[in-house]
Amino acid sequence: MLGQMQSQPLLISSLIEHAERHHSATEIVSRRVEGDIHRSTWGKTAQRARQIARALDALGLAFGDRVGTLAWNGYRHLELYFGVSGTGRVLHTLNPRLHPEQLAWIINHAADTALCFDMTFLPLVKGVAAKCPTVKHWIALCDADALPADSGIPGLKSYEAWIGEQSDATYRWPDLDENSASSMCYTSGTTGNPKGAVYSHRSTVLHAYGAALPDALSCSARDSILPVVPMFHVNAWGLPYSAAAVGCKLVFPGPALDGKSVYELIEAEQVSMAAGVPTVWQMLLGHMQANGLRFSTLKRTVIGGSACPPAMINAFNDDYGVEVLHAWGMTEMSPLGTVCTLKNAQLALPPQEQLKVRLKQGRSLFGVDMKIVDDAGHELPWDGKAYGDLLVRGPWIIASYFKGEGGDPLRYDEHGRGWFPTGDVATIDADGFMQITDRSKDVIKSGGEWISSIDVENIAMAHPAVAMAACVGMRHPKWDERPIVVVVKKPGAELSREQLLAFYEGKIAKWQIPDDVVFVDAIPLGATGKMQKMTLREQLKDYVLPELRAQA
Amino acid sequence: MLGQMQSQPLLISSLIEHAERHHSATEIVSRRVEGDIHRSTWGKTAQRARQIARALDALGLAFGDRVGTLAWNGYRHLELYFGVSGTGRVLHTLNPRLHPEQLAWIINHAADTALCFDMTFLPLVKGVAAKCPTVKHWIALCDADALPADSGIPGLKSYEAWIGEQSDATYRWPDLDENSASSMCYTSGTTGNPKGAVYSHRSTVLHAYGAALPDALSCSARDSILPVVPMFHVNAWGLPYSAAAVGCKLVFPGPALDGKSVYELIEAEQVSMAAGVPTVWQMLLGHMQANGLRFSTLKRTVIGGSACPPAMINAFNDDYGVEVLHAWGMTEMSPLGTVCTLKNAQLALPPQEQLKVRLKQGRSLFGVDMKIVDDAGHELPWDGKAYGDLLVRGPWIIASYFKGEGGDPLRYDEHGRGWFPTGDVATIDADGFMQITDRSKDVIKSGGEWISSIDVENIAMAHPAVAMAACVGMRHPKWDERPIVVVVKKPGAELSREQLLAFYEGKIAKWQIPDDVVFVDAIPLGATGKMQKMTLREQLKDYVLPELRAQA
Repeated sequence: MLGQMQSQPLLISSLIEHAERHHSATEIVSRRVEGDIHRSTWGKTAQRARQIARALDALGLAFGDRVGTLAWNGYRHLELYFGVSGTGRVLHTLNPRLHPEQLAWIINHAADTALCFDMTFLPLVKGVAAKCPTVKHWIALCDADALPADSGIPGLKSYEAWIGEQSDATYRWPDLDENSASSMCYTSGTTGNPKGAVYSHRSTVLHAYGAALPDALSCSARDSILPVVPMFHVNAWGLPYSAAAVGCKLVFPGPALDGKSVYELIEAEQVSMAAGVPTVWQMLLGHMQANGLRFSTLKRTVIGGSACPPAMINAFNDDYGVEVLHAWGMTEMSPLGTVCTLKNAQLALPPQEQLKVRLKQGRSLFGVDMKIVDDAGHELPWDGKAYGDLLVRGPWIIASYFKGEGGDPLRYDEHGRGWFPTGDVATIDADGFMQITDRSKDVIKSGGEWISSIDVENIAMAHPAVAMAACVGMRHPKWDERPIVVVVKKPGAELSREQLLAFYEGKIAKWQIPDDVVFVDAIPLGATGKMQKMTLREQLKDYVLPELRAQA
Repeated sequence: MLGQMQSQPLLISSLIEHAERHHSATEIVSRRVEGDIHRSTWGKTAQRARQIARALDALGLAFGDRVGTLAWNGYRHLELYFGVSGTGRVLHTLNPRLHPEQLAWIINHAADTALCFDMTFLPLVKGVAAKCPTVKHWIALCDADALPADSGIPGLKSYEAWIGEQSDATYRWPDLDENSASSMCYTSGTTGNPKGAVYSHRSTVLHAYGAALPDALSCSARDSILPVVPMFHVNAWGLPYSAAAVGCKLVFPGPALDGKSVYELIEAEQVSMAAGVPTVWQMLLGHMQANGLRFSTLKRTVIGGSACPPAMINAFNDDYGVEVLHAWGMTEMSPLGTVCTLKNAQLALPPQEQLKVRLKQGRSLFGVDMKIVDDAGHELPWDGKAYGDLLVRGPWIIASYFKGEGGDPLRYDEHGRGWFPTGDVATIDADGFMQITDRSKDVIKSGGEWISSIDVENIAMAHPAVAMAACVGMRHPKWDERPIVVVVKKPGAELSREQLLAFYEGKIAKWQIPDDVVFVDAIPLGATGKMQKMTLREQLKDYVLPELRAQA
């Protein structure tokens, strides 16, 4: 027996239509690449999105064609979010921080047919244009008169001139299949080539509902939301979509992510909620502390991308009365998986105990199932102690990558249900608060037990003579793997192997203490400052564990 | 091009699974029919829902079979919400306030195969059982030892014994098509026979997301929510589902809806949000005022079902610091359509202006499109003045009634999109706040213009000599219809036709003033206290407008 409800598909066009009808006058404020502050509204955004739709039709782009963007957070990027996806084309947000070679590789892999970019990225685009034969249309996100006389890009158009040709702003959004692709984003690809996550209208709308819930990002029409997290970073955590669903004000920082610029924007636009990665908040807090400033409207910050340091949570909460919400997600998850919104039980804890909970990545939203499993795939208990591979499933989590790259990423349970392996190792406590303890590939598997490389590193880092520490597993014939710790000493500091190993005693189980310490001058770091353990392991390829040296 | 996301269906079973995994210990507190307070949890609810699932399988009920309930708000009813729908059977909530003949008609029309009822309704069930041949299983929601020796119902089982037979509480919820029927509810049917709205898993889950949003019912795991609105009244506005999605505490009042019982429950269970119809809140406020009581935890009340009087909004807000949220919906809408959550612009208004907004039914949630149209189906402006038939569409609004009763209820626009006519006449202002001004069938259409029967009645009711007034339209050869007002005078009061007509002057446009006043001893009222205008029109079938009497 079937239900007898309307079979209206879940579409991104319905988000912008809702925002226009119900929140037409609500502002979209952007600090532009040009440096000035630009004011738009949901009504204007909807109108210009329809102009984009007509302009894409005029270019003859086919259904499903990819339209790339290389842009900061701003009103034109927002218009493209709705204008491109609403028509059934696929918005492909590109990360301008990538190496040009990698950028060209991704554009070619996605076969983008048009590319819209902020003028700040003109040099980058010039460098890759000749290597991207699929791109037929280059569009600079600027006024017609801001276009350079000789850009070096064949047929370059200004965005304003391009959409300005469509003086008729009427357009009927097509009734697409809700499972149609709406947008895509490539993973950073620390191993192998980047892989594309392809979102659908359905997944995007469901994520918009889930992310806006009170215990997630809590979006209301009364809010003024500042997404500092880039729109090229998993759709700014989906905030543009949730914002349209609830009709809140949006404030975009453009390229100015320094503490002063962000602070001034928060104050001028009465921002109530801001979302971003820890580094941005570090700059903001530094600026405020140096200048004795206060927030007058900010109530919440959502922090994700990497783990938030305790000192930052305390500074926001204790010094500025701003609630910090730790969040966790992935490109493959649209991205939101968990938000660390406390329940009444945690709110009743003393401050130090509460902080321990706030450091966790949080509880999953309805729509995200999660579990932790051991090597054999058996589910582990939610006791806050057992840790295992974190697997997730749900309607806004990928089933496969674009073009099937990497094969089938899912792991199937006994009921045939596919789970996406996050690549993280985590604990989950009885209240459902998840905490990432390691990356799966970094965890050391010793004698059937797991050792968190992060725990081993944190202890070394707490030693006054240690500047940086990396823990990696080394093959062992009996134990499978044994941990060693690779250490960079602070300039001028003295530290012996025996001293550091002794430092571990009492801080960690005896069998978790590293077998050896290797002193090096530097540990290889990636572009985002993360330790490159793959490279480190490569450098250690001739290393032999002390216990095995006699035999060698 | 399709998205590459997981194709997980939206299912009611996923709601209870989420609540169990993430909020197992969160309480479900019920005042029972037995009079005592019962304490359960989401964990126990999930476990007992699985026992129901196994017990339904044991009875041999087929996929899609209807399981009726005649029950107050309580933990067993909640268990049936998930246990019945989760398996692919259809939960059919019955309204015990209906006349037994109508109840039997509905049970037969739905062809319920099992019926679960609270012991308070045993006399009612005894009266209809013989007339309901489709019902093979009668289950009393009580302990085994509470079952009367001779109930008069063949094969009557106690719920606790029935589910208790399933000692194994493991069960794998089936992976249903999300468009499968999950539950049904009949409209009250003021004209003709009642009609069944058949909800799907998809519509229910989407409604659960929408209703839980900050600007709708705002449900968080921190909340303790008291649904006073009956679970047989459009699934208690969907609160059981939204509550499972967010894992909040639920508090059920059972049959005790008097002011004292409701107040004590709110205080004892630290209720933060309560939802119900105005009459219940009137009793609650009366009890509090008479006893000088205060709320210690209640923050919000959601009021729907009928328009909320201004005095009630003021009393909650000014005297008790409780925010009143006016909401509007229909059985055909799952039910939520609009909630009157103010935006910043309205919050900045002076109190009297703000109250005017709070009296409106509110703004639509994302997921509900609405428009107002004139007789020709042309859309009317959102200016707060123009009024017309209110039409709605969205994924949790019905497409048709059970068994196709009443034909195709939708009206189709120029794009072939079907809109459900609510039967209400409304205005919508520029900020999207909708206000119902009349029922479509009651509005008087005079010379191409519409006259609100409610406006005409409210003016008469403001006259000190008037106890009750009903405005109805009378056929007129030139103007189509002209309004007259039917009046019951207060006992001993004196009032002439001319005095009342003079009272209208200056309060309403001249052409909107009724053509005549008809004094009667009583106006026919329905079971819920609403005026029965159809009966009234029948009583007035020989009435002739003054202007036409000469010609007659």
